[in-house]
Amino acid sequence: MHPSSSNVPIDWTRQTSGCLAVKHLGQMIFVFNELYNETTEVLSLLGLNTFIATMAFASSAVANGIFFSAKNNNPFVSYAIANDQNAKRTTAKPLPVQHVNKKAMSSSILKLPSSISNLLHLHLSSHQEVVYPPRTTNSCFLIQNQIPSCSPKEEISSLQPALHGRDDWSPVLEPLHPYVRRELIKYGELAQATYDAFDNNPLSKYQGSCLYGRNRLLPALGLSHHGYFVTEYIYATTHAHLLHWLVRPFFPSCWSDDSNWMGFIAVSGDEESRRIGCRDIVVAWRGTVSPAEWIEDLQGKLEHLPQAPDDVRVEHGFLSMYTSRSPTSRFTRSSASEQVMPELLRLVELYKKRGEEVSVTITGHSLGGALALLNAAEAGSLLPKDVAVKAISFGAPRVGNEEFGDMLRRNGVKVLRVVTKQDVVPKVPGLFFNEGLNRTGWEWIYEHVGDELELDARASPYLKNGVVDIAGFHGLETYLHLVDGYDGAEGGFRAGARRDVALVNKASGFLREELSIPANWYQPENKGMVRNKFGRWVLSGRDPEDIPSPCTANAYDVSSSVM
Amino acid sequence: MHPSSSNVPIDWTRQTSGCLAVKHLGQMIFVFNELYNETTEVLSLLGLNTFIATMAFASSAVANGIFFSAKNNNPFVSYAIANDQNAKRTTAKPLPVQHVNKKAMSSSILKLPSSISNLLHLHLSSHQEVVYPPRTTNSCFLIQNQIPSCSPKEEISSLQPALHGRDDWSPVLEPLHPYVRRELIKYGELAQATYDAFDNNPLSKYQGSCLYGRNRLLPALGLSHHGYFVTEYIYATTHAHLLHWLVRPFFPSCWSDDSNWMGFIAVSGDEESRRIGCRDIVVAWRGTVSPAEWIEDLQGKLEHLPQAPDDVRVEHGFLSMYTSRSPTSRFTRSSASEQVMPELLRLVELYKKRGEEVSVTITGHSLGGALALLNAAEAGSLLPKDVAVKAISFGAPRVGNEEFGDMLRRNGVKVLRVVTKQDVVPKVPGLFFNEGLNRTGWEWIYEHVGDELELDARASPYLKNGVVDIAGFHGLETYLHLVDGYDGAEGGFRAGARRDVALVNKASGFLREELSIPANWYQPENKGMVRNKFGRWVLSGRDPEDIPSPCTANAYDVSSSVM
Repeated sequence: MHPSSSNVPIDWTRQTSGCLAVKHLGQMIFVFNELYNETTEVLSLLGLNTFIATMAFASSAVANGIFFSAKNNNPFVSYAIANDQNAKRTTAKPLPVQHVNKKAMSSSILKLPSSISNLLHLHLSSHQEVVYPPRTTNSCFLIQNQIPSCSPKEEISSLQPALHGRDDWSPVLEPLHPYVRRELIKYGELAQATYDAFDNNPLSKYQGSCLYGRNRLLPALGLSHHGYFVTEYIYATTHAHLLHWLVRPFFPSCWSDDSNWMGFIAVSGDEESRRIGCRDIVVAWRGTVSPAEWIEDLQGKLEHLPQAPDDVRVEHGFLSMYTSRSPTSRFTRSSASEQVMPELLRLVELYKKRGEEVSVTITGHSLGGALALLNAAEAGSLLPKDVAVKAISFGAPRVGNEEFGDMLRRNGVKVLRVVTKQDVVPKVPGLFFNEGLNRTGWEWIYEHVGDELELDARASPYLKNGVVDIAGFHGLETYLHLVDGYDGAEGGFRAGARRDVALVNKASGFLREELSIPANWYQPENKGMVRNKFGRWVLSGRDPEDIPSPCTANAYDVSSSVM
Repeated sequence: MHPSSSNVPIDWTRQTSGCLAVKHLGQMIFVFNELYNETTEVLSLLGLNTFIATMAFASSAVANGIFFSAKNNNPFVSYAIANDQNAKRTTAKPLPVQHVNKKAMSSSILKLPSSISNLLHLHLSSHQEVVYPPRTTNSCFLIQNQIPSCSPKEEISSLQPALHGRDDWSPVLEPLHPYVRRELIKYGELAQATYDAFDNNPLSKYQGSCLYGRNRLLPALGLSHHGYFVTEYIYATTHAHLLHWLVRPFFPSCWSDDSNWMGFIAVSGDEESRRIGCRDIVVAWRGTVSPAEWIEDLQGKLEHLPQAPDDVRVEHGFLSMYTSRSPTSRFTRSSASEQVMPELLRLVELYKKRGEEVSVTITGHSLGGALALLNAAEAGSLLPKDVAVKAISFGAPRVGNEEFGDMLRRNGVKVLRVVTKQDVVPKVPGLFFNEGLNRTGWEWIYEHVGDELELDARASPYLKNGVVDIAGFHGLETYLHLVDGYDGAEGGFRAGARRDVALVNKASGFLREELSIPANWYQPENKGMVRNKFGRWVLSGRDPEDIPSPCTANAYDVSSSVM
């Protein structure tokens, strides 16, 4: 019996009969799934989205055992390995049985006839009907505000092969295992840290750097509970055409004119390593919050990826960011690649020498997701083969051609792309077949490399409905909110979701007005102005330990004075 | 010998001969001034601004004795009563001799020939040539940041008749006496407090109220050093057409649906009363920061002022704000007028019984300046005649017709209008002669009632030049900055000005970019979102003592719960 992911008062009685029933249904579902997978692509080309949605719904409905749970007013279904093929591949212990609150499922069952009706009438609308709760009033939200938002931290080392090893992710993705959900949110929050700590104040002497030194980063952002420790910062520059991407400080005498802080490398501490069953090295890449800044720059050309087979090509702009050096900057005398890879090799060697199982997780959102892919490709080639390398990207654009995907697959790099249906960024850059290549790269190539977790912004009752909010759809906090509420491909919102909804509006105005959360509320007091000892308002300086330093060691740059 | 208003190292040796010379020049200047005043209006109609400016310059140049100080490389001129007529009117002790730093004067002398040349050629450009210092770099500003911004607090009770009594202001206004400057800034800062403490967060339960309880208001805003204590808050509503003015909270269940906090009444403490030579009762009226909101609503009709002679008429909208009640609101069951006047009468009676000299100073910016005028008119009629009533308005619009001005003058109300040349608000509403009145009210009527201190935004080297920034020109903090730097009508900027320049950008972007002060920097951290004990981000509640309460006594409204 595991603690639930929700603390709403629910009777967690184990429904043994249901659990067994699911076991017996396993074979049936497998056939169903195979059929589903075969037909999806064909139908997709024909635009028959409703059929796919209905099949997916039926598939997950069977997997979740809602056929019998529908009789129950407050139905619980058991989470189990429904797919025998996946169970065979799993070399470690079978997944623990986990109870999932499927309250929303009973209303989904009612939608089945209408979906079939839609199918028979070839009604092609892809708009899903989502049942919204009655308008949340301020006071309702106040009550919800009193539910703790922290998740339980279970010992999940038994899931290590699927979560942090080389095993396929698919058995834990649909339906999404609660442990996987929490791991995804953990990595997403580490990626979010690269935004929250980025100094984008045009009047800061350190614009373009990280607000905190590497020892203070995660504690300052309230992320200590994840149990990771930052070992290195990554800086990047670019010689490419992504002009809008590089934040250039207003003052020429600042810390660095042509480098930007791009993320960090962190290692799981002993406690977290025990919990997840391996030493986890995370690389988190910063993207850009506003898609408008760089989307137009992405219509670039494909370029050969160095040290890869001839036909492997990736987007020129991303590659430039990943590999450019600047001889004039102390921070990017070596390229991002040259900063990350030695540190990864050093850490892997360090922990392997101790006989530990090591995994490398490379994550990023948006542009950061693209860099994570490039980084994962390089790590997959250069790191020892017994180190599992995985990339988890949120709302990332396309990076390269099919051969790039093949290379990733050959090197055993696991890729999970978390995308939101309504987000435009994963749909750029344009189709590659007009780039003069022989092979037609119609579709996003990583469908064949790893897995995709497709979120639907319409599933959340907290988000504005019927608006096209490009920044809202694309924001990483929106992604994390939707991962938290993800209730299967059919699009419900998990009743037990309890990640703080207010975070969505940190850098967007995508929450419904009734929730009374200010839009874009993440802002420093008085834009960083503080009163100095002379009674004057000045931009706050930085503590010495937070001043950007190109040294790996914790040596501080004392040449720059703080005010 | 008085301490100087500037702390730059200057030799404050008294220039006795210069002082005497000014005395002898007094008669000459008086004739000059009379001629100047007579001709100004006629020339103004003809658009001969350059002539006026040159005359004004010559006049003030004589008054300031620069004809002989020009021989000196570092000229100091003595501050004295240059106008014999004004000296006769002064019944109390003569003003103390005050040394004023006139460093900028030597450069002004060089401009005289070019001004005369302009005149002879009838060059009509009104653009004043201001000599800007070299572009301030960031580091220069850092040095300036290390000059304390607090002013010395001299014992100024000897100035009481002119400053807080019934005496004419003119002898202390041109050139502006340093003590007067500081008093103006004091009242301006009390008026600014009404903006800084106004809750205009659309998601706040208390939108439209004051952020702090009356005991906490001035300490919370760092204004304790002025030595005043708030005794009462003023709320107002309106039945008039100023629809945009009233802030209406988003939530119907909030503290008050149709009342807004409009300001406060405060009394000088014992120490401050001793310093200024009387018990000073201040009424500070809130205006509106953005002129756009209400300027369009100001094209209203004139309305008879109740309990005044038949021909006294004032703007309908302001009068409605000042006199409207709302039976449904706990805060405006009585009108603003009915809240202010009893409290003023109570306080006046209280301190007069103790045998103290009592003065009433009513201040406000923008819309608040208009309300201050109405309030001063009422106070002038109802308060005992031995209580000096004065109104100091910053950037206030017109309020009434000439007869309203006559009434103020008859009642001995001293009015000082501080206006910035470039500010549009003092120029609204339109001319009144088309309102069907018999008398032609061509000009702003308060020119005849009190005094005007005209500021010039171009005089400040810190403000953006050549831009039309309506909000920047109109902002109260801009006014206070210009009062601090006011160096006479000829438009220089006082070298010793040391009020914190950064304050200008609190709610504007009017400071030059080189100063590296963020625009509109006055903002709460995370828009008021705080993490509650459950780890969730929520809009911060209010301390019980800060929850709006209609009670005069310090009883708190415990019926509203804080979150």
